[in-house]
Amino acid sequence: MISEAPAKRPVVGVFDSGFGGLTVLRELLHHLPGADFIYLGDTAHLPYGSKSQAAVTRFTSAAIKLLVGRGAELVVVACNTASALALPHLDDGSPVPLLGVIKPGAEAAADAVLSGHAAPLSSTAIVLATEATVASHAYAYACAAYGLLAVEKACPLFVPLVEEGWTDSSVTEQVAAIYLQEALASSAETPSVLLLGCTHYPLLRPLLQRTVQQLLGDVPIVDSAEATARQAALLLPTAAKAGQQEPALHVLATDSPAKFQRLGARFLHRTLPEVEHVELEE
Amino acid sequence: MISEAPAKRPVVGVFDSGFGGLTVLRELLHHLPGADFIYLGDTAHLPYGSKSQAAVTRFTSAAIKLLVGRGAELVVVACNTASALALPHLDDGSPVPLLGVIKPGAEAAADAVLSGHAAPLSSTAIVLATEATVASHAYAYACAAYGLLAVEKACPLFVPLVEEGWTDSSVTEQVAAIYLQEALASSAETPSVLLLGCTHYPLLRPLLQRTVQQLLGDVPIVDSAEATARQAALLLPTAAKAGQQEPALHVLATDSPAKFQRLGARFLHRTLPEVEHVELEE
Repeated sequence: MISEAPAKRPVVGVFDSGFGGLTVLRELLHHLPGADFIYLGDTAHLPYGSKSQAAVTRFTSAAIKLLVGRGAELVVVACNTASALALPHLDDGSPVPLLGVIKPGAEAAADAVLSGHAAPLSSTAIVLATEATVASHAYAYACAAYGLLAVEKACPLFVPLVEEGWTDSSVTEQVAAIYLQEALASSAETPSVLLLGCTHYPLLRPLLQRTVQQLLGDVPIVDSAEATARQAALLLPTAAKAGQQEPALHVLATDSPAKFQRLGARFLHRTLPEVEHVELEE
Repeated sequence: MISEAPAKRPVVGVFDSGFGGLTVLRELLHHLPGADFIYLGDTAHLPYGSKSQAAVTRFTSAAIKLLVGRGAELVVVACNTASALALPHLDDGSPVPLLGVIKPGAEAAADAVLSGHAAPLSSTAIVLATEATVASHAYAYACAAYGLLAVEKACPLFVPLVEEGWTDSSVTEQVAAIYLQEALASSAETPSVLLLGCTHYPLLRPLLQRTVQQLLGDVPIVDSAEATARQAALLLPTAAKAGQQEPALHVLATDSPAKFQRLGARFLHRTLPEVEHVELEE
């Protein structure tokens, strides 16, 4: 009797400036149970949201090189700022497919508008994101491809508030209300969907849901994590089926690996394995 | 008639992770009118406050090397986190004197306690600083040398609030009240002085003064900028007298030089010259 050798499990590289991409990794683990994962957080350079396109592109390029060197067959750029600023410059020269979170996010917003019970209020999406992502207008372009008009609003205090752990604080509620009111003031129509354009923001979802309810009523909130994982499953169909073993997960960070392991659990909703310290070769 | 050749003006290097050190540069320009200045903001790696000792030491070492290469005869490390984490490891190997902001800050706090009109309430100083500076306990050691007990409190939201420009917002007042109340809760005595242990925090001084007044009454607030400049004047006595020309100022940044030039004016209280982009050789 000839037993078939087990197929080699594909390795998916996941990259973010820090912890935020773990919200994407969580969905990838769910949608690609037949893959193994290697996650890299560039904690030496975080946050990317206030940095230039040149710097973010340099860091992202070095990170992809490292992940490919470690065997990744697909790299998910699980950072909105890096997807917005660096991916357009890196797609052509990459030896493996690169998947960002901007297009899946725009797709998720369009789906939410179309699948709503009532007729959509408008074709406007409010996109909350970092300063650099907003300045790139990547969401405006991506949303336009789905017939949505994106009103982009930079929310530079959200990442530090999440990292301080104030995800349910009245201070954060006031900041959210200020940001949302500023976004609404620059929108010609009542928006039909709120898109979270930064991987830290899903941790603020319950708080944002309350703020949106008060200001706008029943407007859905979407993020790109699940849509990105579904897209990854299309690129690696064999990994979308559960294998005989649990996905292996290896985690790398460019600074403070112990802190990364400790704080990352809040984003991944499970304990992280020991985190390996690496340096990027820029 | 023999005319004496004009003495060569000393060059002072000033280093910070970003803009904050410009509050120290402002005092240096005032106290060392006979010197020229070269300022380096490591904006590619900011903020330092959440990074590890190893990373901060690596960045600081590279920055000092760059400034010395550009002719600096004295380097002022105008960043509390770098002074706390990196200076103890770099002092011995440096070709020029290095001056940090921690000891001058502790000295300023001690002076404020001793020069107060009434008898000091206690020998306790509350020190507000970044996460990394607090974790190093550099202020506890420096204050102890002046007979002060430092109650150190990390305030990770202050830097992003200052950079968002919310220096007079009710949100920032609430954050300040929360941080101060947490600091007071861990202090056995009523403090006699509040020390701002991060060069961004002087921009919050009016707001902090109101918060302190409400919670504690007439407790003085000090920062290390002026004390550091006085210390620099002792190290370069010839530069403490005004020369025949205005101090030259050259500004370098490792990322986003145009943004640095635009935002830096708020910290320096005057227009910045064109900012040159440089890279650190780590």
